[in-house]
Amino acid sequence: MDVASRNKALRVGVLGAGRIGRVHTQILSRLGVTVVAIADPSEERGQSLAREFGVAKVTTKVEDIFNDPTIHAVLICSPTDLHAQHIHQAAAAKKHIFCEKPIALDLGVVDAAVHAVEAAGVKMMVGFNRRFDANFKRIRKAVIDGEVGDVGMIRITSRDPSAPPVSYIKVSGGIFCDMTIHDFDMARFLVGSEVEQVFVMAQARDPEIGAAGDVDTAVVCLRFKNGVLGYIENSRVAAYGYDQRVEILGSKGAVSCENNYPNTVTISTGTSIARDLPLHFFIDRYMDAYKDELSAFVDVCLDPRTAPPVSGHDGRQALKLGLAATRSMKENRPVLLSEFDAPPMVGRL
Amino acid sequence: MDVASRNKALRVGVLGAGRIGRVHTQILSRLGVTVVAIADPSEERGQSLAREFGVAKVTTKVEDIFNDPTIHAVLICSPTDLHAQHIHQAAAAKKHIFCEKPIALDLGVVDAAVHAVEAAGVKMMVGFNRRFDANFKRIRKAVIDGEVGDVGMIRITSRDPSAPPVSYIKVSGGIFCDMTIHDFDMARFLVGSEVEQVFVMAQARDPEIGAAGDVDTAVVCLRFKNGVLGYIENSRVAAYGYDQRVEILGSKGAVSCENNYPNTVTISTGTSIARDLPLHFFIDRYMDAYKDELSAFVDVCLDPRTAPPVSGHDGRQALKLGLAATRSMKENRPVLLSEFDAPPMVGRL
Amino acid sequence: MDVASRNKALRVGVLGAGRIGRVHTQILSRLGVTVVAIADPSEERGQSLAREFGVAKVTTKVEDIFNDPTIHAVLICSPTDLHAQHIHQAAAAKKHIFCEKPIALDLGVVDAAVHAVEAAGVKMMVGFNRRFDANFKRIRKAVIDGEVGDVGMIRITSRDPSAPPVSYIKVSGGIFCDMTIHDFDMARFLVGSEVEQVFVMAQARDPEIGAAGDVDTAVVCLRFKNGVLGYIENSRVAAYGYDQRVEILGSKGAVSCENNYPNTVTISTGTSIARDLPLHFFIDRYMDAYKDELSAFVDVCLDPRTAPPVSGHDGRQALKLGLAATRSMKENRPVLLSEFDAPPMVGRL
Amino acid sequence: MDVASRNKALRVGVLGAGRIGRVHTQILSRLGVTVVAIADPSEERGQSLAREFGVAKVTTKVEDIFNDPTIHAVLICSPTDLHAQHIHQAAAAKKHIFCEKPIALDLGVVDAAVHAVEAAGVKMMVGFNRRFDANFKRIRKAVIDGEVGDVGMIRITSRDPSAPPVSYIKVSGGIFCDMTIHDFDMARFLVGSEVEQVFVMAQARDPEIGAAGDVDTAVVCLRFKNGVLGYIENSRVAAYGYDQRVEILGSKGAVSCENNYPNTVTISTGTSIARDLPLHFFIDRYMDAYKDELSAFVDVCLDPRTAPPVSGHDGRQALKLGLAATRSMKENRPVLLSEFDAPPMVGRL
Repeated sequence: MDVASRNKALRVGVLGAGRIGRVHTQILSRLGVTVVAIADPSEERGQSLAREFGVAKVTTKVEDIFNDPTIHAVLICSPTDLHAQHIHQAAAAKKHIFCEKPIALDLGVVDAAVHAVEAAGVKMMVGFNRRFDANFKRIRKAVIDGEVGDVGMIRITSRDPSAPPVSYIKVSGGIFCDMTIHDFDMARFLVGSEVEQVFVMAQARDPEIGAAGDVDTAVVCLRFKNGVLGYIENSRVAAYGYDQRVEILGSKGAVSCENNYPNTVTISTGTSIARDLPLHFFIDRYMDAYKDELSAFVDVCLDPRTAPPVSGHDGRQALKLGLAATRSMKENRPVLLSEFDAPPMVGRL
Repeated sequence: MDVASRNKALRVGVLGAGRIGRVHTQILSRLGVTVVAIADPSEERGQSLAREFGVAKVTTKVEDIFNDPTIHAVLICSPTDLHAQHIHQAAAAKKHIFCEKPIALDLGVVDAAVHAVEAAGVKMMVGFNRRFDANFKRIRKAVIDGEVGDVGMIRITSRDPSAPPVSYIKVSGGIFCDMTIHDFDMARFLVGSEVEQVFVMAQARDPEIGAAGDVDTAVVCLRFKNGVLGYIENSRVAAYGYDQRVEILGSKGAVSCENNYPNTVTISTGTSIARDLPLHFFIDRYMDAYKDELSAFVDVCLDPRTAPPVSGHDGRQALKLGLAATRSMKENRPVLLSEFDAPPMVGRL
Repeated sequence: MDVASRNKALRVGVLGAGRIGRVHTQILSRLGVTVVAIADPSEERGQSLAREFGVAKVTTKVEDIFNDPTIHAVLICSPTDLHAQHIHQAAAAKKHIFCEKPIALDLGVVDAAVHAVEAAGVKMMVGFNRRFDANFKRIRKAVIDGEVGDVGMIRITSRDPSAPPVSYIKVSGGIFCDMTIHDFDMARFLVGSEVEQVFVMAQARDPEIGAAGDVDTAVVCLRFKNGVLGYIENSRVAAYGYDQRVEILGSKGAVSCENNYPNTVTISTGTSIARDLPLHFFIDRYMDAYKDELSAFVDVCLDPRTAPPVSGHDGRQALKLGLAATRSMKENRPVLLSEFDAPPMVGRL
Repeated sequence: MDVASRNKALRVGVLGAGRIGRVHTQILSRLGVTVVAIADPSEERGQSLAREFGVAKVTTKVEDIFNDPTIHAVLICSPTDLHAQHIHQAAAAKKHIFCEKPIALDLGVVDAAVHAVEAAGVKMMVGFNRRFDANFKRIRKAVIDGEVGDVGMIRITSRDPSAPPVSYIKVSGGIFCDMTIHDFDMARFLVGSEVEQVFVMAQARDPEIGAAGDVDTAVVCLRFKNGVLGYIENSRVAAYGYDQRVEILGSKGAVSCENNYPNTVTISTGTSIARDLPLHFFIDRYMDAYKDELSAFVDVCLDPRTAPPVSGHDGRQALKLGLAATRSMKENRPVLLSEFDAPPMVGRL
């Protein structure tokens, strides 16, 4: 069957018509996938998105999507605190699931959701879109192909152009579960090993963020089980814009990428040799990655033999790293990931 | 009206299901434009393309498209020697026209086609896609905004990864009308003035290309009416791949762009500090430009107030430069563009 | 007085004719400073160096230099374990002192040496040559001038092309006092604040280095008193060569430098887009910095009003950081610099 | 013999204590060469330079240098119109000669000077310092080693930060003999072949320069005897500073260099991603090249077996290209270099 007919045959429901819901709906529409319905508590917001991409049905009740037997898969683009509930509902309704990160902010909740998915025999893919970025894919390839030999060290630089509102920060789970979680997944993806120990130095440059109980600047050190050392550097505020870079040092050399810019133009005047600011934020920077991510999800839904390239387990591991980093910061000590494994935790190491 | 409905309302026919016809059909499909029919002498090729993007109708007769009263516009992606004829037919049928470059290899034929379009009151846009490239648009903006002051000099470097087959070269009209024509348009677009005089130094590094009466390596000097000096450097064979760069020197400084690569990854080993080869060829390099180009054409078709951003006149001027360059090379002398203006040309200089 | 006569009037003795002694003697010679004598336990090595740069006198006894009343200043380029002793002798002989880093590996020894210098009323400058590098000076200027606003974070990447012999590593004091000590000084220099806390993650990729009780790969986190976070990344082995970079993130933006290369040439072939390897090691990379460093020392010796731009205190602080990092690694915990301040240390923490 | 003694044995006289005379005297001094005397019409200027680098003797009469039997070699740093006369005098006095470019502005005068040198059996090296630049040497190496295969095209971009005074321009011989002459030598050096034909497009952006009979902006096309095409792009005024770049396209790929900057620091703010302006002008940019150039001359003087790496013939060929370019501009036609060869030239011209 040709790709167009194949994609059209896939019938999808989208939960959440916000910013990321809009991105995904647009991509599905361009891939020729049939978006059957959009659910959003705001009918107006749902209608607006549906109209833009020719989606026939809008509802304020997610059940309308779960109960539609013609729908094969759902995209969970709802607020984080609803992700797990929607996963359970989707699994019960035997829909394949694409869930934005994080699955939840509580490990037990994540575990239950992942188990529900497995029990239902549906597939779940978690939205770590950066794995599909051209730069990071190329770095992963260099690692796999041994272009830099055995990996010894990884650095991830990840800076946002500006902090989200304090109201959001308060419910975000903190920088490590909200922002760094992407970098934790990237570190695991690129190194191909699990992390054993985490140590964090952090601070709130912005007093409002500090007052909200969070930090905006952090260095996170990782020791992987295979001996690799990693460090992630985060900032909520890079005045020049979004900045996403990785560097790996291996026994045969190093592989690194530069940040992404809207063009390669240089303007040389009597004052400076300058170029334009980087691509502003994640929607611009990662649009191609979002496309490849959803293409992969479409393939996963349509081909029974394939497993999701980013699994519920990946979502769980990234969250665990976020929780360990949070604990390290609070207690100013290196934290073993194993502290989060053993129930019951007696005494705390 | 929302964009989706608006675009869907535009009904288009595509003439030619070859490489560039495929690119445009895909883009139209993703824009939500209704591609009514595809015409191609090879029914199989037409069917294959139609199937891929869900186009309902395929025909081997272009008349089926011109005679369909529901079709508003046509994309002429047929071989160059049919462009003019298809323009005349489309104009007669009152369809808006998107025509790949060059319109024709004969100035008289181009003039007649342009006049037919004007007489019919339809719009025609010519496929100089590079005007829509992010780098070149940014450079044009720098010129318009005076970021580098008054332009004094422009350099265009334009190299293909490998030469087309000799069979193609023989009917291509020569490097200046086939390949450099893009650069001529770029020079006019960026400088915003017409060229007065052309001088060429060229040679065939590949003896087979020389035997076919063409060259593969050329330097083209331009003197613009506003005093700007330009030089275009072309090669049919750059072993490392496609290479498209521009540099402008103005009274306040310079603006230039680098070539485009698939990623920004550097691999440093004991042997070299290396990056991957550039984006291979024009389809990869200019995909975003093709998208913006067709979006602009869609807007032009749908909005009676807008004029095409690249006109038949632009196609004519670029061809004239190609002819002047060819003459300069053959006669080893600077050639005035005005030599091509005055009918009848008596004696010639 | 002109510079030539002024420099010639300064009479210097060099202790140690090894690699760094040779670098300094060459520079002094080109600055026109009078190198009176070279002392080295190996007469042959001393003679060879003296001959190359026209130094009149060679001795195997350092006392011949300290006792020469015509000598104004000494350069201590002897092995580290002799530095402190030579400082005491030079101070007693009222010579100004340029001492290679580190002064010693024991804080008490360093303190005594620094006090001896102060008591003698001579000047001492410590050889943190990197402060004179064009890149790092420019970054310091950006910080001072507020070009990036308030500093929030600093990263130092510092990699050697290959590890020294294990025999050297065993007596080096460990990577943090031997190699990272330069980066500690750079961090203090660029941030302009003292460090409060250090945490290290490290490992020995090379088992021989591990067997020698040292590591070759490390991430060092720093928390400065002014709130700045820092991280230093070290490797003894970068297969592609010496690599020295810094990046600072401030409230108004970031400033960073690239590594240094012998040329800016790119070679693009069908295989890769490549450049030559970086300048191989510190002598090549920092030759200009060594020149400026010694020029500064000459100025300091000749002008009674000037203080050394890198003082004994700076040497002491860098050593303290090296010791704190070593302790952090061994005890796998964040270490406060204040642990090294208070005699007697009762109970520790 | 060691290098210091060897260099000291070479006794040199410097003609001209202007800007370039100062550069060379400083370098000779640092190489340990004995500068015996400086001749300059201005005794004050000569004294100032002599004092700075400890030169014992100053004279206003060049004969004092030519007549000194202890002097082995002279550096001709006098004004261009005295070069040839000083060459004749030096040859007659059996001194080796280093002569700044151009030897003269008249081919006959150059020929006579070159012949006088040959007849005297002394060596003459011409000051095309750029051949000793790290970038251009690396590019030459790539050509020689076949890293880019057979050369097909060369581009030289050469821009000054600002035009010299009009008073200088009037006696300079015009841009092609004054400024482009360096680029002509570079083109010959890099391609390793002679030029057959030249064509120029040029203009005076600055009306004062135009009024002085010169141009400030030019594109020079070259056709080499071995089929290579070249183009040189010159501007007297690049607002951002000195700009010297080369690019060569060969059958296996391309080799190119970037312009040179004082550091590799990037400053990223909310406004732009910027770096500092390039090294300002030739003294800064080419200081290392000047050093290597004079080192080579010292070797040539001291070793009877060596020939100068840049010969009088090279000076002659570069001048011929300057004259051909001047003629091409004036007559707006391609000019064969052979037009300057054949005495007597009957008919055309």
